Amino acid sequence: MLSKNIVNFLGCDSEYKNAEIVLYGAPFDSTVSFRPGTRFAPQAIRNDSYGLETYSPYQDKDLSDINVFDSGDLELPTGDTQNVLKTIEKRTEIIFEDNKIPFLIGGEHLVTLGSVRAAIKKYKSLNIIHLDAHTDLREDYLGVKLSHACVIRRCWELTGDNRIYQFGIRSGDKSEFEWAKQGHTYLKRFCLEGLDTTIEKLKGEPIYLTVDLDVLDTSYFPGTGTPEPGGVSFLELMNAVIEICSKLRIIGCDVTELCPIYDQSGVSTAIACKIIREMLLALCKTEGDNNG
Amino acid sequence: MLSKNIVNFLGCDSEYKNAEIVLYGAPFDSTVSFRPGTRFAPQAIRNDSYGLETYSPYQDKDLSDINVFDSGDLELPTGDTQNVLKTIEKRTEIIFEDNKIPFLIGGEHLVTLGSVRAAIKKYKSLNIIHLDAHTDLREDYLGVKLSHACVIRRCWELTGDNRIYQFGIRSGDKSEFEWAKQGHTYLKRFCLEGLDTTIEKLKGEPIYLTVDLDVLDTSYFPGTGTPEPGGVSFLELMNAVIEICSKLRIIGCDVTELCPIYDQSGVSTAIACKIIREMLLALCKTEGDNNG
Amino acid sequence: MLSKNIVNFLGCDSEYKNAEIVLYGAPFDSTVSFRPGTRFAPQAIRNDSYGLETYSPYQDKDLSDINVFDSGDLELPTGDTQNVLKTIEKRTEIIFEDNKIPFLIGGEHLVTLGSVRAAIKKYKSLNIIHLDAHTDLREDYLGVKLSHACVIRRCWELTGDNRIYQFGIRSGDKSEFEWAKQGHTYLKRFCLEGLDTTIEKLKGEPIYLTVDLDVLDTSYFPGTGTPEPGGVSFLELMNAVIEICSKLRIIGCDVTELCPIYDQSGVSTAIACKIIREMLLALCKTEGDNNG
Amino acid sequence: MLSKNIVNFLGCDSEYKNAEIVLYGAPFDSTVSFRPGTRFAPQAIRNDSYGLETYSPYQDKDLSDINVFDSGDLELPTGDTQNVLKTIEKRTEIIFEDNKIPFLIGGEHLVTLGSVRAAIKKYKSLNIIHLDAHTDLREDYLGVKLSHACVIRRCWELTGDNRIYQFGIRSGDKSEFEWAKQGHTYLKRFCLEGLDTTIEKLKGEPIYLTVDLDVLDTSYFPGTGTPEPGGVSFLELMNAVIEICSKLRIIGCDVTELCPIYDQSGVSTAIACKIIREMLLALCKTEGDNNG
Amino acid sequence: MLSKNIVNFLGCDSEYKNAEIVLYGAPFDSTVSFRPGTRFAPQAIRNDSYGLETYSPYQDKDLSDINVFDSGDLELPTGDTQNVLKTIEKRTEIIFEDNKIPFLIGGEHLVTLGSVRAAIKKYKSLNIIHLDAHTDLREDYLGVKLSHACVIRRCWELTGDNRIYQFGIRSGDKSEFEWAKQGHTYLKRFCLEGLDTTIEKLKGEPIYLTVDLDVLDTSYFPGTGTPEPGGVSFLELMNAVIEICSKLRIIGCDVTELCPIYDQSGVSTAIACKIIREMLLALCKTEGDNNG
Amino acid sequence: MLSKNIVNFLGCDSEYKNAEIVLYGAPFDSTVSFRPGTRFAPQAIRNDSYGLETYSPYQDKDLSDINVFDSGDLELPTGDTQNVLKTIEKRTEIIFEDNKIPFLIGGEHLVTLGSVRAAIKKYKSLNIIHLDAHTDLREDYLGVKLSHACVIRRCWELTGDNRIYQFGIRSGDKSEFEWAKQGHTYLKRFCLEGLDTTIEKLKGEPIYLTVDLDVLDTSYFPGTGTPEPGGVSFLELMNAVIEICSKLRIIGCDVTELCPIYDQSGVSTAIACKIIREMLLALCKTEGDNNG
Repeated sequence: MLSKNIVNFLGCDSEYKNAEIVLYGAPFDSTVSFRPGTRFAPQAIRNDSYGLETYSPYQDKDLSDINVFDSGDLELPTGDTQNVLKTIEKRTEIIFEDNKIPFLIGGEHLVTLGSVRAAIKKYKSLNIIHLDAHTDLREDYLGVKLSHACVIRRCWELTGDNRIYQFGIRSGDKSEFEWAKQGHTYLKRFCLEGLDTTIEKLKGEPIYLTVDLDVLDTSYFPGTGTPEPGGVSFLELMNAVIEICSKLRIIGCDVTELCPIYDQSGVSTAIACKIIREMLLALCKTEGDNNG
Repeated sequence: MLSKNIVNFLGCDSEYKNAEIVLYGAPFDSTVSFRPGTRFAPQAIRNDSYGLETYSPYQDKDLSDINVFDSGDLELPTGDTQNVLKTIEKRTEIIFEDNKIPFLIGGEHLVTLGSVRAAIKKYKSLNIIHLDAHTDLREDYLGVKLSHACVIRRCWELTGDNRIYQFGIRSGDKSEFEWAKQGHTYLKRFCLEGLDTTIEKLKGEPIYLTVDLDVLDTSYFPGTGTPEPGGVSFLELMNAVIEICSKLRIIGCDVTELCPIYDQSGVSTAIACKIIREMLLALCKTEGDNNG
Repeated sequence: MLSKNIVNFLGCDSEYKNAEIVLYGAPFDSTVSFRPGTRFAPQAIRNDSYGLETYSPYQDKDLSDINVFDSGDLELPTGDTQNVLKTIEKRTEIIFEDNKIPFLIGGEHLVTLGSVRAAIKKYKSLNIIHLDAHTDLREDYLGVKLSHACVIRRCWELTGDNRIYQFGIRSGDKSEFEWAKQGHTYLKRFCLEGLDTTIEKLKGEPIYLTVDLDVLDTSYFPGTGTPEPGGVSFLELMNAVIEICSKLRIIGCDVTELCPIYDQSGVSTAIACKIIREMLLALCKTEGDNNG
Repeated sequence: MLSKNIVNFLGCDSEYKNAEIVLYGAPFDSTVSFRPGTRFAPQAIRNDSYGLETYSPYQDKDLSDINVFDSGDLELPTGDTQNVLKTIEKRTEIIFEDNKIPFLIGGEHLVTLGSVRAAIKKYKSLNIIHLDAHTDLREDYLGVKLSHACVIRRCWELTGDNRIYQFGIRSGDKSEFEWAKQGHTYLKRFCLEGLDTTIEKLKGEPIYLTVDLDVLDTSYFPGTGTPEPGGVSFLELMNAVIEICSKLRIIGCDVTELCPIYDQSGVSTAIACKIIREMLLALCKTEGDNNG
Repeated sequence: MLSKNIVNFLGCDSEYKNAEIVLYGAPFDSTVSFRPGTRFAPQAIRNDSYGLETYSPYQDKDLSDINVFDSGDLELPTGDTQNVLKTIEKRTEIIFEDNKIPFLIGGEHLVTLGSVRAAIKKYKSLNIIHLDAHTDLREDYLGVKLSHACVIRRCWELTGDNRIYQFGIRSGDKSEFEWAKQGHTYLKRFCLEGLDTTIEKLKGEPIYLTVDLDVLDTSYFPGTGTPEPGGVSFLELMNAVIEICSKLRIIGCDVTELCPIYDQSGVSTAIACKIIREMLLALCKTEGDNNG
Repeated sequence: MLSKNIVNFLGCDSEYKNAEIVLYGAPFDSTVSFRPGTRFAPQAIRNDSYGLETYSPYQDKDLSDINVFDSGDLELPTGDTQNVLKTIEKRTEIIFEDNKIPFLIGGEHLVTLGSVRAAIKKYKSLNIIHLDAHTDLREDYLGVKLSHACVIRRCWELTGDNRIYQFGIRSGDKSEFEWAKQGHTYLKRFCLEGLDTTIEKLKGEPIYLTVDLDVLDTSYFPGTGTPEPGGVSFLELMNAVIEICSKLRIIGCDVTELCPIYDQSGVSTAIACKIIREMLLALCKTEGDNNG
């Protein structure tokens, strides 16, 4: 008898009950201000992950030795942002209930809000580490509050001051930078400097990590809706997420804003895959199904 | 003194007060179920219209002889569908108040609803001619009522039965075809046959014409979000819109669903431009600024 | 508990035991003489099938009413043509053993040979209907016998004379056309004329149908490795496969030679999807899982 | 000893002294009003001709049986239109002196003027058959007389009235159509109708044939700088050039306006190749090197 | 009453009379030796500037606080290089007469000559700072003197020795490097080193700054006609232009050689936009309309 | 009399008998595991080399001063890997027999095996320097031994231990890294560090240099089948190949794995061209035809 066509991110084929981490995709891009298309990211990432190896020479670890379950993409009611966020929130809650780490693949950055809403219910004192080119701190964008340009502001409404650590930021409204400076968030402009100190400070705290891939320089990562030159290198980002995921208590995370159509070389998708691979390897503390 | 950089659709440079027709763009694509990107259509159409001639050998008329004003694109609150539609509705109302014909360039097909809402206020017994590959008659799409897959159903809620004439339809849910057959709309499958009879029947009535360019076969028009092979030819569509616009009392119209990124040859944009040129030439009954 | 990420062709989600037809992909393109890339066709077809409707207004049937199982793609040892063909042959045999219809999605056209090898074991008097732009009748191509340019010649070695019916052929070596004319195959140049007669003649006989999508004109189907202008229209092909599949005893079939990278509009993939949908609907004689 | 890397159009590898036809490319596109890029056409055509067969089932002839020499591309002083045209003219003259048929591959349509200047010196009563979407009859374009929009007007200055036969024309300034109607050229709008009569009339006369490939409908041929929907089909054009080349006394010809970058599927280049193959096969009256 | 469709570079919407800087585009690319297409740069830059923010965190300044007027693109007689240059020269003169800074957006690099001709009339002792990958110092290119490969040589004919400072140069004919070394220009190979000294030296002098964007490494800026790997980074170039524009007396400037079609990710256009934004912010010494 | 259309890599137009180096292309990509298309690299490299200058400011040398012969592309029996390798081996042997340096342009990396087989016959104690992102040390790939993923393992079977020096490696199976560490090859992960020492050690020894261009970071070189972020910069690679080629006794070399279709900007091809130019200039010890 032939088996069904299961399509996972490379090497993420644990049984759900054994999994330490659960992947899920949110193919949503309806609030973006410039160029849409991130909805196709989760699919592209799964498909092109087969161009990767399961083994990382950076961490000397292998995806085949860890326990990850890929639960596929959410079916989202495009056009109804409130319900989209609720659908994301529900899936995240289920994963939390089963004591696993939710790993969300966007979609645009607004999807983070769904996950963070679920996280904050479980972890009242949640901190957020935010790697991005953009501040995402607007009160609203042309009157719209649920916009990818406002997502961190919405998260701040849940966490309160001094809970959000932003790195790599190089674009935003003047007022957003000023608002951050008033003490609402820690905002490091242009680069990832100071991340070590932040990691030191947050040890043991529950952390949600949100990676907007446009934190990368456009030379590395052209495949995104709102390209911002002047960002960090692939190795800087890779080392940063390895540090964060291996040293801190990450209770949930996401990777967002890959827009595959704007990079037909597939390089941006390959980078997304590799960042996800390294995050998974750094997050997993236990050995895989196959090893015992 | 140097002048400002005014960018119009080719030859549409009348003064507003003289204009018989007013162009406006709705760069919106947030409810589409498959591939977004139609938001860039109005801009692409204006830019590439300069590859056209103002003269049509088909109608032996010239854009430089008619009065059209191009009012540019609306600024739309992406992510908030209700307000997007209100913004479109308001612009349409202004144009109606000034006794001009509103000519909307989408964007996805849902933008039609904004225009039709304005039209129905002025013309209680409005009829709609709808050229499309898709039925667009769903009650909702994954629970979302304001979706491009439901736009004609939403229009029907305004017009009632026997007011909507659909041509070229070749894709939809089974229940949509059946709902149409129950007498709610006139639905001609696959082609434009029977249009003559419809034109005969509707003479003198107030008509809104909505053209979803995916009514064209995909060989002619690959640049669209939801490609449906099996459609009509460019010449069939061009002749149809010339007939409709010259013989009927068109009180408003739109052209939607060009998605430029999916046709990097520019052919789909060129076709959109030519369809718009022929519609403008067929709609205008008076002579232009330059001629008197 | 969350479920696994099963990715099927649209609506093909029967249980294996109930299925009348079984889909399987052969992501192989190593013998092509010009431009490779068909290996990505099965994946692209599954992904983009979600831009389709399950309902066909052409046949008034719905994929949700029939029983099809999608068994995913074969894992093929690229670079070792003999073993690639054996892998295809084995999967086909399993499907035959379970009394289901194998429906293979290529890949390049050589994959057909794997299926036909399995078919001829079960059906000694097998006939083949072959829709293609190319003769595919070479004895060898630069000395290589297992080449996509030779696949029908290899099939003929299995079936013998008067068993292969070729339509739409418009490209080949002079000697190939002459070889066919010697009575080895029935070869209809340029178009599908005479298909009716062939269908009449073959009623009740076991038939394998192989569709090389480049039989379509390049205006409809640019996404292929060896584009040949001068082919048939989408509607001609669609009607032909509906006729063949509904009127004849098709014991196996395939659809090959979509090369997605050469059509970034996605139109060629959409056409492949629709041809497959119509073939599935025409092939299925029984009602689906859901119905009873 | 290894041989040099000679790159010819498929099968055009006669020795110069034996050749009946001589190919040469003019990689020039500096005067185009909209989108440049035709300079890469001759190279693309040679490269992709290897996706073709040498045999034509339409004419039952084979390139390997005729005598054609490919003399490669001219080195053109881009930016100096006068000298570009002189360079083309000189190469054409050499070919005429050696009593061979010059077959020019553009580049933009202005290159025709170089060839026609040479032709008119040898054939005082030259006639021109012109297949195109555009009139190309402007006196000047923004003051520029040597523009691709004026090329046929410049040719008319050499031939005088009643010598130019235009087919397929569907775009131009109103005044151009009127100027033609005054009796300067024969201009058939939209299609190739009436070509039979023209062929009948011109039998035995010296004819220069100039094919602007944008005479094709954009569904067949998207790869061109100024796309004009509403044109002729591939088979109509192919049959027309076979008729013209086999029945008339063609003393020189060209194929222009392929712009490869605007059709990344390669279909437009494939069409250019096939049109050229059919023209070569129809032009050659003698047998090839290989046959004697 | 509806307003006209004015399309400016982001935030450059001052009234002409108030403007300190005037933008103008020169959509010209007819003399390029390799790949044309820069004519579409000014349009692409205006359109995609809306993906930017008006605020620069690098300079802590905002486009909404300065006075820039965008006068749109010149209408250029493509194919007649002399007149193209005259048209550019005239527009530049008007801007000089009104005591504003001309900011030209190319097009190919030859457009600089039009501007420099106007500048040298007003500023006899003009110096030029030239950032580029290419020497642009040829006496002629295939006999053509008005070529993008000769533009700096042509400028030198106007300024004389010791007036031109070239940085980032990594490609050219051997003789060009030698000619520079003879003391005609200051030429810094490969990088921007020594720019500080140049700035120090030129303080207070009238300077024309010409930026050929291919000075950037191809990893940052693939969208150009003649890609030259081995260049400077985005941040190096951005910092350089900020230094030059804020510390020196720039009397005119340009940004050239973006070729949008060769970078369909839009990243190259985004970089052009950001470089222009930073130059505008560094150039403006007075406060904007809105602030007083 | 007109001359034939010879297409060489820029400036490589020596007579064969005078040539020190012989170029040849192997358009083969049938064993690649992920994305094929490298077969078009040799053609793309020749065509786009005309965007380069013959002069290198890095080495102050000029291609017009050295003796290189371009023998074009091999005609390879696609689909029959054994014969493909034999064809490559034979051409390499001819070049060795004539005491010239073979310079192979791939195609996929497996083509190296053909060249190395020829080299090892002549140079028993051959050493290989291998620049790559991938280990290429698998015993087999899905049972296939002649795969691009196994090419260096196959070479090792010919050279034995301690003869292969790998640099830049950042991807592979865990077991491949371990196998290398057992002393079979010298393997430097991630970068080119240690190359100086290797050069010092190998002085005077016969060396084959194989460059898989994916050793470059994907920001520089997106045009490859299996993109691996995290690689070396263009300048690092260029300096490395100049060092290796000028200081060591290179008896043969190759450059592989450019896949032009995945970088439509042409930047990857431009980089391949420049790396080849610098290698040629560094390899040549004698003066060219033109100089004596």
